Amino acid sequence: MKLLQPIEINGMTVRNRVVVPAMVTRLSGEDGFVNQDIIDRYVRYAKGEIGLIVVEAMAIHKSRSGPLLRISEDQYVPGLTELASRIHDTSDSKVVPQIIHFLKVARSGWRQTLDMLSLEDIDLIVEQFGDAVARAREAGFDGAELHAAHAYTLASFLSRVNPREDDYSGRTLEGRLRMIARVMENVRGKVGPDFPVGIRFLADEYIKDGYTITDAKLIGLRLAQLGFDYLSLSVGGKFEDAIHKQGEVPYPYTGYSGDRCMPGDWYPPALHAHLGGEIKAFVNGKGFSVPVMVAGKIADPDTAERLIADGVVDMVAVARGQLADPDWVKKVKADRRDQIIQCDYCNWCKILDGTHQKVRCTIWPKDALQAPEYALANEVPAWPEAGAGLKAEYAEGAVTLSWSKAVGSIAGYDIYRAEDSGDIKATKAVKARRWTDRTVMAGVKYRYRVRARDESGHPSAPSQAVIVAPQPAAAGFA
Amino acid sequence: MKLLQPIEINGMTVRNRVVVPAMVTRLSGEDGFVNQDIIDRYVRYAKGEIGLIVVEAMAIHKSRSGPLLRISEDQYVPGLTELASRIHDTSDSKVVPQIIHFLKVARSGWRQTLDMLSLEDIDLIVEQFGDAVARAREAGFDGAELHAAHAYTLASFLSRVNPREDDYSGRTLEGRLRMIARVMENVRGKVGPDFPVGIRFLADEYIKDGYTITDAKLIGLRLAQLGFDYLSLSVGGKFEDAIHKQGEVPYPYTGYSGDRCMPGDWYPPALHAHLGGEIKAFVNGKGFSVPVMVAGKIADPDTAERLIADGVVDMVAVARGQLADPDWVKKVKADRRDQIIQCDYCNWCKILDGTHQKVRCTIWPKDALQAPEYALANEVPAWPEAGAGLKAEYAEGAVTLSWSKAVGSIAGYDIYRAEDSGDIKATKAVKARRWTDRTVMAGVKYRYRVRARDESGHPSAPSQAVIVAPQPAAAGFA
Repeated sequence: MKLLQPIEINGMTVRNRVVVPAMVTRLSGEDGFVNQDIIDRYVRYAKGEIGLIVVEAMAIHKSRSGPLLRISEDQYVPGLTELASRIHDTSDSKVVPQIIHFLKVARSGWRQTLDMLSLEDIDLIVEQFGDAVARAREAGFDGAELHAAHAYTLASFLSRVNPREDDYSGRTLEGRLRMIARVMENVRGKVGPDFPVGIRFLADEYIKDGYTITDAKLIGLRLAQLGFDYLSLSVGGKFEDAIHKQGEVPYPYTGYSGDRCMPGDWYPPALHAHLGGEIKAFVNGKGFSVPVMVAGKIADPDTAERLIADGVVDMVAVARGQLADPDWVKKVKADRRDQIIQCDYCNWCKILDGTHQKVRCTIWPKDALQAPEYALANEVPAWPEAGAGLKAEYAEGAVTLSWSKAVGSIAGYDIYRAEDSGDIKATKAVKARRWTDRTVMAGVKYRYRVRARDESGHPSAPSQAVIVAPQPAAAGFA
Repeated sequence: MKLLQPIEINGMTVRNRVVVPAMVTRLSGEDGFVNQDIIDRYVRYAKGEIGLIVVEAMAIHKSRSGPLLRISEDQYVPGLTELASRIHDTSDSKVVPQIIHFLKVARSGWRQTLDMLSLEDIDLIVEQFGDAVARAREAGFDGAELHAAHAYTLASFLSRVNPREDDYSGRTLEGRLRMIARVMENVRGKVGPDFPVGIRFLADEYIKDGYTITDAKLIGLRLAQLGFDYLSLSVGGKFEDAIHKQGEVPYPYTGYSGDRCMPGDWYPPALHAHLGGEIKAFVNGKGFSVPVMVAGKIADPDTAERLIADGVVDMVAVARGQLADPDWVKKVKADRRDQIIQCDYCNWCKILDGTHQKVRCTIWPKDALQAPEYALANEVPAWPEAGAGLKAEYAEGAVTLSWSKAVGSIAGYDIYRAEDSGDIKATKAVKARRWTDRTVMAGVKYRYRVRARDESGHPSAPSQAVIVAPQPAAAGFA
């Protein structure tokens, strides 16, 4: 498979074309230090033999935020060194941290915008990026990635709605590109030419008056000219259309651009791959061979293989798919993709992130902070019919689920329930193929799934979800 | 060219694959009657030998609106008969009216939503659609098109954010589709099976939680099952993300979904054609051969030809391109596409629509209500260099334009100026190749273009636009 072939990125040999892009975990404290949960999360990815692991965004400055890693001072280097070294000890996965600067946001909904930055502020940010990448090198990471996507500072410079009117002016593409050029110059001055430095940016802002693929191709070209070692594409995720809930810090994934950034189950698969393809074709056409990767509901190995084999992009970024199952690559390698536990894009992970809770996946075991490790089984429990025959009936305040008998030596079934509100509950194993949930309330939408487990703990694929949305009676709640 | 081959639509022979889709003109009065300006607008399209002309939306009910055609009562039939007959007398263009129902909107920003409709309201709308299509047939139109796109009633039923919870519930696709099924049943009951009835709907709502191509394919299939004779795809244009200016009626093209619906010059060409293609492939794959057409920055005949020749879609809808130049088809037929006056997507037409002004095009002669008619010339004035060498300099409150000498027997030059505010001014012809505009103000953005005219009145292509955005001095306006 082309998907499993190595690729060279400025001297870093990545063993396959699969990337786990930066995903917020909310596992660190507000102090920004690496802790055991963080190490466990990334070691788990390394066990999965993922080609390139991008560690969640770490900040180059001290601005308050929720739980977030920091790389803003030397005191963070030992923890980061431990993280990199534990990952390297685990497998030959390569690992780079994502390096971020963000502007201030307040619970009132106020947010600092680019035009509030003085030239001195800008100079400081430039230095901070360079210093942060130098620390990444010192900590033993294989490279670093600059975060110029979504709602963050570098992306705001690149944005078509950049409000500045000076040398960094949003009125011209050159003005929008000036900051990233200065940052890269500073970075290279501090880490030299042979340290892999990638960048993540937006293929489309997906906001009113925002830039589209038309500008993204040119931005990609400039980034290649500046010597970035890979281009990683995302879309949307902006503050401009964020929905502000009173008293909460605005979250840039609540508006339409947030829908696009982490597309839910009503979006088609691999929906942004063609944008990555257009950027790659354009940049290659100008004589640059910089690897291009793209994210967005690429969950199926056949789709991923096709994208690589057809030369649409050089690498695929599988985020939620590998959160659900960090053994995605390993199972593809073993030709056991039937055992991949598929993300169904319920976006519970997104809700947890948005509410600053530790990011987990609904289809992990109850209360688990990390994906479980199952040995590859020759046989795993299977469902005799599509969707596992899962049915739900609502009556008098209770939902009764029933499902088909799984095939195999079944020890029991796990039931998963998610709510719109983001709360999730999973019962312990039940033996029966029927279960009644008496804790539902009219007016809330529930999503249930069930999985079978065999006697060695191997899980079946999750059933399809059934959604139950009991309605309040016309004259009030039932 | 495949683009120029006829196509049969339920007995209506359309002579080529080019459609001018419904565009609001604001040329009628608020009384809703056809007037001379309306007739002139559509006769002008017919002169251009466009395959299918879709007359702007006409309402099936009396709700207040700005200037808008009506088909809600028999008193409108004579005017509509005159319109259809004048078009038919002009060329063999086929013509169908677009039939619309919309909910109420107020200057306060309040708007009626679908859940406010009683079952009796719904029954009435169903009958009104049927009656309106019957009037279209009586008036001599070749067919009719139901408007189930953008921010209007039928689209709100189809929407993924349809808030109803009854038989028309937004919780299921079947619920969302129920209304259109009832409407079509009523229509067919009143006009029979042999009157072409098309429908325009959204390939993607482009709003938060809105439906995407995933649902649009299924909606397209159902519409084919219901016996619609063509599927015409648009995108976006919703109230959900409209930006409300105090004291103004909300306009559903002011948000991001409005950007997508009438994409400006920063969007790539033919940007939604692939969505039309996905719907066509899916519906065809289910055994239906209903013609599919798509709109969205399809301005270039080569692009249009490729879409038809490759079987992506069956017809192309060229809206702003044919507003700019209604002789688009005629010039393609004559193999003189060099003479097509290209829309540059400045969206002045959109601004005029949004402010209820008569919709015109910036590149028509000053104050013209209709596109001018020029005989095809063997030679037209040409620019010796790309962009006509147009330059603009701002100093002390004045913009000085200069440009290259056009090739040919030049009588003079026309200068066009558009402002962000939507006001447009064009000077009369100037002889010189230099002109100073002393009526500009810092803080406003201006867009200039120039065209040469020869002694027979034939215009050159417009120059590229130059944009001047004089800045207020830091301490106040200069």
